[in-house]
Amino acid sequence: MSLLLTNTTIVTMDQSDSDYQTQPHCYIAMAHGKIVEIGAMQQCPTTAFTDVIDCQNRLITPGLIDSHTHLVFAGNRAKEFEQRLTGVPYETIAKQGGGILSTVNATRAATEAELVELALKRLSALTADGVTTIEIKSGYGLTLEDELKMLRAAKQLEQHANIKVSTTLLAAHAVPPEYKGDADSYIRYVCDEIIPAAVDAKLVDAVDVFCEGIGFNLAQTKSVFETALSYGLNIKGHTEQLSNLGGSELAAKMGATSVDHIEYLDEQGVKALAEHGTVATLLPGAFYFLRETQLPPIKLLRQHNVPMALATDFNPGTSPIASLTMMMNMGCTLFRLTPEEALRGVTCHAARALGLQDARGQIKVGYDADLAIWDIDHPAQLAYEIGTPRLHARILNGALCHD
Amino acid sequence: MSLLLTNTTIVTMDQSDSDYQTQPHCYIAMAHGKIVEIGAMQQCPTTAFTDVIDCQNRLITPGLIDSHTHLVFAGNRAKEFEQRLTGVPYETIAKQGGGILSTVNATRAATEAELVELALKRLSALTADGVTTIEIKSGYGLTLEDELKMLRAAKQLEQHANIKVSTTLLAAHAVPPEYKGDADSYIRYVCDEIIPAAVDAKLVDAVDVFCEGIGFNLAQTKSVFETALSYGLNIKGHTEQLSNLGGSELAAKMGATSVDHIEYLDEQGVKALAEHGTVATLLPGAFYFLRETQLPPIKLLRQHNVPMALATDFNPGTSPIASLTMMMNMGCTLFRLTPEEALRGVTCHAARALGLQDARGQIKVGYDADLAIWDIDHPAQLAYEIGTPRLHARILNGALCHD
Ligand SMILES: [Zn+2]
Ligand SMILES: [Zn+2]
Repeated sequence: MSLLLTNTTIVTMDQSDSDYQTQPHCYIAMAHGKIVEIGAMQQCPTTAFTDVIDCQNRLITPGLIDSHTHLVFAGNRAKEFEQRLTGVPYETIAKQGGGILSTVNATRAATEAELVELALKRLSALTADGVTTIEIKSGYGLTLEDELKMLRAAKQLEQHANIKVSTTLLAAHAVPPEYKGDADSYIRYVCDEIIPAAVDAKLVDAVDVFCEGIGFNLAQTKSVFETALSYGLNIKGHTEQLSNLGGSELAAKMGATSVDHIEYLDEQGVKALAEHGTVATLLPGAFYFLRETQLPPIKLLRQHNVPMALATDFNPGTSPIASLTMMMNMGCTLFRLTPEEALRGVTCHAARALGLQDARGQIKVGYDADLAIWDIDHPAQLAYEIGTPRLHARILNGALCHD
Repeated sequence: MSLLLTNTTIVTMDQSDSDYQTQPHCYIAMAHGKIVEIGAMQQCPTTAFTDVIDCQNRLITPGLIDSHTHLVFAGNRAKEFEQRLTGVPYETIAKQGGGILSTVNATRAATEAELVELALKRLSALTADGVTTIEIKSGYGLTLEDELKMLRAAKQLEQHANIKVSTTLLAAHAVPPEYKGDADSYIRYVCDEIIPAAVDAKLVDAVDVFCEGIGFNLAQTKSVFETALSYGLNIKGHTEQLSNLGGSELAAKMGATSVDHIEYLDEQGVKALAEHGTVATLLPGAFYFLRETQLPPIKLLRQHNVPMALATDFNPGTSPIASLTMMMNMGCTLFRLTPEEALRGVTCHAARALGLQDARGQIKVGYDADLAIWDIDHPAQLAYEIGTPRLHARILNGALCHD
C-alpha cells in the first residue's frame, strides 16, 4: 500500500521548516500509513506506487485535529436555548431537569448504537471540514456502565467513518444525582472503579476533570489526575473557564498535555504551562455561545511561547457548532489569533494537546499520512471564509477517503 | 405537475395561524408550483398526484430566504484579513489596493461565466442549509457594463441551481476610482445610465444604496431612490450601520421594502419603519466579523411591531460566512432574538423584505410551493445547533430538488 501525491502545494506545519509558508510543486510519498518522502517535483520518484494522484497544485495541509469535543451524547438542548431567550428563569429550567442533567438522562437512556448513529451525523460535518483526528470525551454517563458505553461508542466511530479517535474519560464532569452533595465519594468512585475499568477495557487515552467552582475542586482534581497517571494515562483539564482556581497550574505541574478554556488564567499559570510544555487549548465556540467577555491571555501565552490549540468543544450545552474552521474564524475574530496561529491550533499544537506531536499534525517524514487537500490558494482562507465548500479530499493513513 | 407530501409536521409561518407551532400529521398538496391544499392527514386527498412523498413526520418549514447577500464577486480578502490580524496598518492595506477596491478590481477582471462558477460554490452552501430564495446585489462593478455583468451572473444562477434569485442593483455601493472625489457625478451616472440600462435589460428587482459617512449622503441616496421608484422598482438601503444619518427614515418614507444593518437606528427611525411597513433587516454576520458593539434596537423594533428579517450579508469584506442558520444562531446569541423571531427573519419577514410577502415565506394555500424538509423535532433546533447535517430535502416550485 503506497500512495504518491504529485503537484502539491504544501503547508507542512513542520516546525523545523518555515512551516506556514506554502511550498509549491512538491510531491508527497506515503507507504504503510506513513509519510515516507517529501520533495520538489523535479526529484519526484519514478518507482511504482499503488496509487498516484495528481493534485493539480492544490494546497495540502496536515489533516485537521479537533482536540476537544463532547461529540457522543443523546438529546439536544434547543428547548432550553429557546427558554433562556424567551426569558424563562434559570431556576425554572433547572427544575424541569434542564442543563447538563438533561443530557445525562438522555445519554443514559440511549443505547450504544444510538449514540454512534447520532455522533456519526455530527462527525460528518467535521470530516467535511478536513478533520482526520478527533478527541471525544465521556462525561454524560457518570456511572461506570454509562461512561464506558460512551467511550465504546466513541471508539466505534473509527469503524464507521474515516477518522482517528482519541478517547478521554471525563467522568469528573459533574456530580451525578446519585452522589448529590457528596462529590468526594463520587471522586472516589471515579478513581477506584471507573478509571480502572476504562483502562482494563482499553477504552481510554486520557483523563480530564472539570475543575471549577461548579465542578470539582483542586484536591478532587488532583486525586483523579494521580489515579490517571498511575495507569500511565495522559491528563488534561477543563480549567480557568469561569474563575481562577489554579487548576491549570496544578495540571501543568502534574504533566498535563493540555489545559482547556483558560479564559481566567493569569501569568503564574501561563508560566507553569510554559515550564511544563502544556498546551493551552482555546475554545472560542463556548466563549461565543456563552457571551463571555473575559478573553484568554493570548498575549501572555505568545510571550511565553505556550503552544495554543483551538478546538470545537462540540457539546449540546455551550458549543453546539460542528465546524472546526468556524472555530478558526472565531479564534481570529474574537481572540485575535492570526490565521497562522489558528492553523497551528488545529494541526501541530492540537496533536501536542493529545500527546501525538511525534506522529500527527505535521507533513513530515515518518508522520502519519493524514492530510487535507484544499481548493484554496492560501492557508489564511481556512480561517477567513466559512461555509463555502473547499475541501477537495482527505487522506487517512495514506489512503484517499471516499467520504 | 402535482405533488403530495404526506405525514408532515408543518410550521407554517402563516401569520393567521399560530404560525410557529408545529402541526403534526398534515398533508400539503401542490400543483403548478403553488400550494393548493393543506390539511390533516385524515382528510388527505385520494385523487391522483404526479408524485407522492411520505415525509415520515419530518418537520417542514417554508424554504428559507436569504434576503441580503453580495454573493457574486471574484477574489477573496483572506490576505487582508491576515494582514489586519498581524498588525499591518490600515493605510498600508489600502495603499496595496486592499478593501472593497480589491474586490471591484477582481470582479471587473472576471468574466460572467467565472462569476457564475464562483457564486455557485457559495450558493451550494446556502441551498444545503435550506435556502430556496436568495437576494443578490451588484455593487462590485461600479460601471454600467460591470454592474450588468454581475446582475446577469446572479440571474444565471437560476439556470444552474435549484434556486430563485431576486436581484438588487447596488451601483451606489462605493464611489469608483474613476469618480474619486466626485460622488455627485457618479450618482448622476447611476441614475441616468446604470438604472435605466438595468431596467431595459430586465435585470433588476430593487435598487439599494449604501447610505453612510463612508458611502453616500442623504441627498445622493434620495436621488437614486427617486430614479428607482420612477421605474417602478423596489428600494432598500444599507443604513445606520456605522452612524445615524437618517437613511432608514428617508428610505421608509419613500416606501422601502427594507432597511438593512440599522445598528444605530433610533426610536424616530423605528417609528418610521413601523408607519411605512418597512422591514428591519438584521445582519449579525457583519456585526460579528467587524466586532461591533452597538446593538440594533431590538426592543424598540419589537415594541413597534416592526418585522425583522435576518440575512447572511455574504460578502468578502465584512461577512464571509455562507450559512443562514449560523446567522439565526448569531441573531439569537448576539442580538438575543428568540428562535421564533430568527425563523420569521428567514421566512415570512425575509419575503416581505423582498416585496414577496404575498407569494413566499409561508406555507399557505396560493403561495409558492418552496419548502424545506428537516430531520429535526422542533424549529428552535435550526437556530441552536450548527453544522450537523439536518436538511432532508428542498421543494422548489412544487418539485423535489435533487441537489
Ligand atoms: Zn469541554
Ligand atoms: Zn450588504
